[in-house]
Amino acid sequence: MNNQYNIVFQPSGLRGKVDEDATILDAARQLGVSLESVCGGKGNCGKCKVQIEEGHYDKYHIESSFSAVTTKPETNTKFLTKEQIKHNYCLACQTRIHGDVVVFVPEQSRKGQQVVRKEATNRKIKLNPAIKKYYVELTPATLHDAVGDYERLLDQIEKDHMLTGLSMDYPVLTRLQGIVREGDWKVTVSVWQGKEIIGIEPGQVKKGFGLAVDIGTTTVAGYLCDLTTGEVLATESMMNPQVAFGEDVMSRIGYATKEKNGLKKLNDAVIGSLNEIAENACKRAGIKRSDIIDVAVVGNTCIHHLFLNIPPQYMGRSPFPPAIHHSVDVKARDLGLHLAPGAYVHVLPNEAGFVGADNVGVLIAEEPYNQDQMLLIIDIGTNGELILGNRKRLLSSSCATGPAFEGAEIRHGMRAAAGAIEKLKIDPKTKEVQFKVIGNDKWNTEDKNIGARGICGSGIFDAAAQMFLAGIIEKSGRINMNIKSPRLRQGEKEPEFVIAWADETAINQDIAIVQKDIRAIQLAKGAMYSGARIMMNRMGVDKIDRVILAGAFGSYIDKTSAAVIGLFPDCDQKFVYAVGNAAGDGARMALLNKDKRDEADYWAKRVEYVELTLEPNFNKIFTSALAFPHAADKFPHLKNLLP
Amino acid sequence: MNNQYNIVFQPSGLRGKVDEDATILDAARQLGVSLESVCGGKGNCGKCKVQIEEGHYDKYHIESSFSAVTTKPETNTKFLTKEQIKHNYCLACQTRIHGDVVVFVPEQSRKGQQVVRKEATNRKIKLNPAIKKYYVELTPATLHDAVGDYERLLDQIEKDHMLTGLSMDYPVLTRLQGIVREGDWKVTVSVWQGKEIIGIEPGQVKKGFGLAVDIGTTTVAGYLCDLTTGEVLATESMMNPQVAFGEDVMSRIGYATKEKNGLKKLNDAVIGSLNEIAENACKRAGIKRSDIIDVAVVGNTCIHHLFLNIPPQYMGRSPFPPAIHHSVDVKARDLGLHLAPGAYVHVLPNEAGFVGADNVGVLIAEEPYNQDQMLLIIDIGTNGELILGNRKRLLSSSCATGPAFEGAEIRHGMRAAAGAIEKLKIDPKTKEVQFKVIGNDKWNTEDKNIGARGICGSGIFDAAAQMFLAGIIEKSGRINMNIKSPRLRQGEKEPEFVIAWADETAINQDIAIVQKDIRAIQLAKGAMYSGARIMMNRMGVDKIDRVILAGAFGSYIDKTSAAVIGLFPDCDQKFVYAVGNAAGDGARMALLNKDKRDEADYWAKRVEYVELTLEPNFNKIFTSALAFPHAADKFPHLKNLLP
Repeated sequence: MNNQYNIVFQPSGLRGKVDEDATILDAARQLGVSLESVCGGKGNCGKCKVQIEEGHYDKYHIESSFSAVTTKPETNTKFLTKEQIKHNYCLACQTRIHGDVVVFVPEQSRKGQQVVRKEATNRKIKLNPAIKKYYVELTPATLHDAVGDYERLLDQIEKDHMLTGLSMDYPVLTRLQGIVREGDWKVTVSVWQGKEIIGIEPGQVKKGFGLAVDIGTTTVAGYLCDLTTGEVLATESMMNPQVAFGEDVMSRIGYATKEKNGLKKLNDAVIGSLNEIAENACKRAGIKRSDIIDVAVVGNTCIHHLFLNIPPQYMGRSPFPPAIHHSVDVKARDLGLHLAPGAYVHVLPNEAGFVGADNVGVLIAEEPYNQDQMLLIIDIGTNGELILGNRKRLLSSSCATGPAFEGAEIRHGMRAAAGAIEKLKIDPKTKEVQFKVIGNDKWNTEDKNIGARGICGSGIFDAAAQMFLAGIIEKSGRINMNIKSPRLRQGEKEPEFVIAWADETAINQDIAIVQKDIRAIQLAKGAMYSGARIMMNRMGVDKIDRVILAGAFGSYIDKTSAAVIGLFPDCDQKFVYAVGNAAGDGARMALLNKDKRDEADYWAKRVEYVELTLEPNFNKIFTSALAFPHAADKFPHLKNLLP
Repeated sequence: MNNQYNIVFQPSGLRGKVDEDATILDAARQLGVSLESVCGGKGNCGKCKVQIEEGHYDKYHIESSFSAVTTKPETNTKFLTKEQIKHNYCLACQTRIHGDVVVFVPEQSRKGQQVVRKEATNRKIKLNPAIKKYYVELTPATLHDAVGDYERLLDQIEKDHMLTGLSMDYPVLTRLQGIVREGDWKVTVSVWQGKEIIGIEPGQVKKGFGLAVDIGTTTVAGYLCDLTTGEVLATESMMNPQVAFGEDVMSRIGYATKEKNGLKKLNDAVIGSLNEIAENACKRAGIKRSDIIDVAVVGNTCIHHLFLNIPPQYMGRSPFPPAIHHSVDVKARDLGLHLAPGAYVHVLPNEAGFVGADNVGVLIAEEPYNQDQMLLIIDIGTNGELILGNRKRLLSSSCATGPAFEGAEIRHGMRAAAGAIEKLKIDPKTKEVQFKVIGNDKWNTEDKNIGARGICGSGIFDAAAQMFLAGIIEKSGRINMNIKSPRLRQGEKEPEFVIAWADETAINQDIAIVQKDIRAIQLAKGAMYSGARIMMNRMGVDKIDRVILAGAFGSYIDKTSAAVIGLFPDCDQKFVYAVGNAAGDGARMALLNKDKRDEADYWAKRVEYVELTLEPNFNKIFTSALAFPHAADKFPHLKNLLP
């Protein structure tokens, strides 16, 4: 057995023993310490900064007599200031334990409770659920007619409801006779897709309940629905607990592939979160978990694989084939979900590579295949997904925007949690900044001590757009140091523009946008823009009639900021819509209307996937798309706005 | 928490703590002490006699200062001699523990290792298994053709083998991509019933393995078969561990219904035995348990329900409807069987009431529906099952023979274990007895000290027949005390005839057949005979062309003894056949040929079940059938034999 050492985390006081050579991040996960880790422990994001308080650490620049921890020098140079290094800061994921140690987790490294913004929308959904209930009254068995309950039941269902050839799920069979007698020979059966009896209840029961689930990379949302009315009885959401193993899908694929029991841990995490969501939603609605007789799930291809316990390693590397495109129907019990014993889980189909079931959810919610107008649907997340087309033809693609829009790889970036700057304006003349943080209704001009902790995605959009419009950054993205403003200064390594002064924050530091942040935003929005452009070329169109911003994030960004930085090609602002969590809506539709499941399988197969990296001019198109809003393209609809 | 007391069993020395008020039988089960219990603890069989060695027990006839155990006086009077009572004997199931105690388990109460006689027979079986294997070579994925593995595989199967509309079992999906790459894009899939991919292996694999299982009330037998040749690679059998909870089906139904977790215990027991049989058979054949891709199971209706974890309570009381007649296909994993992850278990259909899947096994093995001759098929077990008919019409019935044929309710009865007298002859003149015991090739005339422990079923048949032929018992069954023989004597309560003298036994007591034993045999054989007679009346025939003795037991009894005591109506001895374990053969056929499954479902539905107790003349017919061989019927084929 390995040596074990004591570790204490401050200020939480959480403590325990960990094996020699474990990283501080491992220890934090093991002890339940809230610690940011956007990259999942690869040393790429710099978000898990901690301070070694006791014990010493043996680095090239620290003299110590013994080694409580060792760390990799190169990551320090990259993510830590000299000041921080002097005060024993290090990255938790790159620092291994070789002795007893006390670790301080500074405010900005603690994981905030993300604000979950995945409310169900008010779309009208036609009701035709996959599960239907049938009531039958049986003739009691006698010595002269002692036929078995199964045959008696099937016979009566055929007589009363003209359903033939039904099979019966095994758990129903084990409970059949008891329930028939409990109901005094009157029972209600739940039939899945007109084929299989998946549930049985005594007496006459009309209500039935289902759960639509949108598993996002960051957030899991569940919508408990009444299958007879379509009503959403409860919405429950929580952080996807897989975040602890890597914030983006590539980190999770890496974790699942390389770590011991990695896939099992990721799968257990998401299954556990669904059980919890189901439990909470049922409590809220006053029903039991075993009343849930159907489930529909969307998620991107990686999430899809992890949810189904399918190793994601092959879809994580070229040529990126998923295990399956087609929708999957699997018994909830086979997944470890504790719902009605016979319940199925319907997982919507994947399109291709990283364009997964969540995008299909958007597809069946927005139905571009029933439109004449040329639509561009943008689902902004850690991965960007794009659909272009109309009833004649549909293209899809995905682009790695990176986590910049979610606040990662941004010096003061953070998730949309309390304290995040979510909106901001810059006066083009004075260059003064007004901003608003999540959890506080006031702008900083009204309340100086506003408690900002960082900037989240929508704030980053605004920052880039406003800095561009105020001339602080040039078309090329370069920060223009000729501008006169106390907020504009040369930082330790690069130019930076202060958004919030230390006294407006909860972290006692100036919150600034640095040159590298702008570069990250350019890469992200450039990927999105060039994806749309390549698809337009492939489609042979040079004009988009409508832009649909899908995804919860799309509802919170400022449409104009998005247009100004050049997230998508020119379009009339009147025809840019945010439709909220369309993926979740798609899941709800598939739950409530089985025809939507067929529609999903039909269209998932027919959407032509465009592999952007195979486009011969990709680099050229991408490079032009890095500029604000674009190096060459015209934006007639923005002509009054752009400098 | 209850008080706990120490209990020690002798001579095994097994010891442990048990809760106050537990019975000695409970304690024996808990500590793994081998102790007979035919009735499952109801105090009806008298087989669990034990002797209290230390501690005292407080009964009306024993003076004691304190009570280590208490027992029910009435059971003692019924099953114990005065001598035994004086020496602190009691029934373990009726005696509760209230203090520390030492218990001696006498030889005749120890459970013998039953001789398992369920070898597979040499029937020719046409091969057409439900699982077929298909080999396909896939085109590797590229960036230009990155379609998912599932779609790629289905496409190739359709092209190469013209199989369409295949579904894929969930565990296969989780392993799909890894196996495709392990096999370098060449794989073999196992397809169930032309519908579902239930397994996948890298490369080309031709062999496939299946397990046919005959779950008897007393014995579980498994036949590991090569699905490509039909060969039986290994036969494994063991006592059905449910025996510990009751030896006959009614006791087990009682246990499942009344005891806490009773069903679960019975189900766990039989599932555990199947896992063990599978493991042992695979070891013997040099394969892995996960190589077993198909299973076919037969058992009587009660066993069928307990195996499928279906509460048997309703089929245990009038009007006795089973949960299901139709065959059941259920995933092995849903039953807790550890075989190939996607394997199905096919459980053959039930006919009616107590005529279960085992009888259907006999039916498809013997195929009376393809014969012109009038067949009577008798399956002798704890329950007797009868089939009468030919290609024109088939009747079935079941009769409660009671456990007499298996040695229960017989003073010196025992199972077919080492030491059981299995054959015997009585000289009509001298009334001297020759017998042979299991585990010893010699007859007692060659080796006086032969170590008999009791009499098993085939020995009981012989004893009744030989005593009748020797005039020791009359046609009415009464022991004729006028016969002069030192073996014939008045016992404590009733007349008895000594089969083995104490010095020929391992228990140091004379082994005798008592008047009550003869009555038990009469009831058992009378039930069988009258069942056959009522069916013949219903069929409108007065002659049987062939009698088939099915069941392992049928192979070990003497045909002539069976005819002489009147187990079945008159038939030419040339046309009385023992066919061995036909139920097990039926399971093997269903495993190897899926058409036999359809045949089973087809005929199980068409066999007309005759509820014997509804027959108006039942009592009259039954009473006449009690006589040896019958009160009124003629036996032209036995005329040279009968007195």
